[in-house]
Amino acid sequence: MSLKDQICSSLNLIRERRPLVHSITNLVVMNETANAILCLGALPIMSHAVEEVEEMVALADALVLNIGTLTPSWIDAMELAGKRASALKKPVILDPVGAGTTKLRTEACKRLLSSVNITIVRGNAGELAALIGVSSEVRGVESIGTSETSEHIATCFAKEFSCVAAVTGAIDVVSSGASTARISNGDAMLGRVVGTGCISSVIVGSFAAVDRDPFTAAIGGLVTLGIAGELAATCTEDKGPGAFHVELYNALAAVSPDHIRSRAKVEML
Amino acid sequence: MSLKDQICSSLNLIRERRPLVHSITNLVVMNETANAILCLGALPIMSHAVEEVEEMVALADALVLNIGTLTPSWIDAMELAGKRASALKKPVILDPVGAGTTKLRTEACKRLLSSVNITIVRGNAGELAALIGVSSEVRGVESIGTSETSEHIATCFAKEFSCVAAVTGAIDVVSSGASTARISNGDAMLGRVVGTGCISSVIVGSFAAVDRDPFTAAIGGLVTLGIAGELAATCTEDKGPGAFHVELYNALAAVSPDHIRSRAKVEML
Amino acid sequence: MSLKDQICSSLNLIRERRPLVHSITNLVVMNETANAILCLGALPIMSHAVEEVEEMVALADALVLNIGTLTPSWIDAMELAGKRASALKKPVILDPVGAGTTKLRTEACKRLLSSVNITIVRGNAGELAALIGVSSEVRGVESIGTSETSEHIATCFAKEFSCVAAVTGAIDVVSSGASTARISNGDAMLGRVVGTGCISSVIVGSFAAVDRDPFTAAIGGLVTLGIAGELAATCTEDKGPGAFHVELYNALAAVSPDHIRSRAKVEML
Repeated sequence: MSLKDQICSSLNLIRERRPLVHSITNLVVMNETANAILCLGALPIMSHAVEEVEEMVALADALVLNIGTLTPSWIDAMELAGKRASALKKPVILDPVGAGTTKLRTEACKRLLSSVNITIVRGNAGELAALIGVSSEVRGVESIGTSETSEHIATCFAKEFSCVAAVTGAIDVVSSGASTARISNGDAMLGRVVGTGCISSVIVGSFAAVDRDPFTAAIGGLVTLGIAGELAATCTEDKGPGAFHVELYNALAAVSPDHIRSRAKVEML
Repeated sequence: MSLKDQICSSLNLIRERRPLVHSITNLVVMNETANAILCLGALPIMSHAVEEVEEMVALADALVLNIGTLTPSWIDAMELAGKRASALKKPVILDPVGAGTTKLRTEACKRLLSSVNITIVRGNAGELAALIGVSSEVRGVESIGTSETSEHIATCFAKEFSCVAAVTGAIDVVSSGASTARISNGDAMLGRVVGTGCISSVIVGSFAAVDRDPFTAAIGGLVTLGIAGELAATCTEDKGPGAFHVELYNALAAVSPDHIRSRAKVEML
Repeated sequence: MSLKDQICSSLNLIRERRPLVHSITNLVVMNETANAILCLGALPIMSHAVEEVEEMVALADALVLNIGTLTPSWIDAMELAGKRASALKKPVILDPVGAGTTKLRTEACKRLLSSVNITIVRGNAGELAALIGVSSEVRGVESIGTSETSEHIATCFAKEFSCVAAVTGAIDVVSSGASTARISNGDAMLGRVVGTGCISSVIVGSFAAVDRDPFTAAIGGLVTLGIAGELAATCTEDKGPGAFHVELYNALAAVSPDHIRSRAKVEML
């Protein structure tokens, strides 16, 4: 099966099976990521109490951990849920928001990467660089870097942590260590709405819930969100980020295998 | 007064008196439910610290408890606020999100139902079934079932817990134990936006704040949200869930007694 | 430099420098205030763990503290971050949501005002009145009062706490104690969307991040949001609060120095 066919097949499966995607995520994007999952066709569950996350993740098809507004008790919940998901062979996606900016964030990510079988890490170049000890330019939770930088960071990260690394930016790069792909879909408007990085992580999680290969799942998720961003930008006609944000949900619901076939821009490196 | 007249009267009272609706709710829908309350014409208050909920609920006209992202300390706050509301004879609405999916959720609901004088419970068939020991098909926080199932569950629930039970789905059913009504308003798009169940609970809470009869308050709230969903769907013209979500707030602000009179579909059973 | 020139200069600086605005804010408006900051041109950071706020605020250009859904541990985080910001001479904006409604809220504000070097307080007349012991009409988190009342409260508050006091309402009043200004921009629709008060605080925070004079920064933020509200209302054509909410983000991105020059309504008292 070609890569595009695999993405189309996963998109169809998401809408047929409606996998449950359990998120333990930040307070800023809870509603937005839940709506993104639902618009795409999967079902969102949010739950973060240490008393229930193991039971909840057992019902889910994928787990997304996002440390955007972390506190120690949330990290405990992420670790518990992550370990249980690992034991049950369910995919776990980590979004290391702000890794490198504070010790708490960097340490939390390292702890999760060592105690949980993380399947895919999705972050910007600065966040992933911080976790492998490569220096990079970061500003708050924003990252500045080139696509060559992203390729280097993604490949190193994937090898060091034996997972798939998805580095997003103007150009997205996905690496399994052995294979690496560059994705050129998306629109600059995605950078003008809060939480589209977090949304990319849950879209990747939705693909991982139906695709056992995390490399194609990560590519599928990023291609699909990128194309949804392009469709939304077309509808918005420069009205601004508020209008684009609304159209992004419409586009996530409307994006089809035909769109994938005609618009996906993936290059294997 | 006819049921439709009662609903129209309550809708007018909400806009004249602007009752305060205190919510202790989940992290996913805080903004959305607050905006739904404000659009309808009531005033939202969110507060969950055990140190202040009793003082806050004393200022409010109704209390809505929603366990969607519960932790033990939030349940403690819900119980404190609920007991104080009960003592002050203020209506308390419980939204048992995900009851039946984890032990924590089921136990929390049972604890609140036993320690607080819950006036109205609003949930889906699976959630209410789990609390009365009836088996039902549930998937994560979604429920699957027929309208006959809903009638059975609503009636049993209302009798067991001496409250009004509102079971929502394609068809909504409200039962006081003695009386039962079936509501056929709404639109399938309501199922494509996260939190419309939670929104229905706060709209019911807004009606309960001005209507001493919880049976007609629950019907009024569900009819009003259902009609708002119909109006929003008409405006949206298949643009998708993002557009529908925006129009739903417009519709909650615009829905009028005339809409209620011409569109309400309530059948007493 | 005239006041209008100063506001235009700050607006341009926000878009050139992209200052980091660190918020420790309430759970209801996290996404909305982050998007408002990003739309205006600054960069939002949300972080509330006591373990990291001091490190995070050191990277930021302004700190906004909002007690809308406070708990004791959040107040601890606000105090830690505030003290560190004070030590680093960074501006700190306090939004005392609901001060006067519960003891917890009033005490938390007084504690922050005494232990942190608060630069600007932005609230409604009732909230600020409660903190200086002046009686006023308050309903939940809503306040009722005249513009004369606001002037009196703003001036007294500024003198008592040696900070700039920004009292918002139909007419906004900003006072440094020595100087006082009245701002007549804005639109009634701003009162129909949850969190526009909180948004005004982060817009003021964004201006304070680039303008060392807190008096002109507060005026600049309120004028800019007021004009954005006017632009959004023009675009919305009475479609309702959902449509207005979306247009407000578009307007925050679109508002320009030309809009400031032609529309600002500021009167020095």
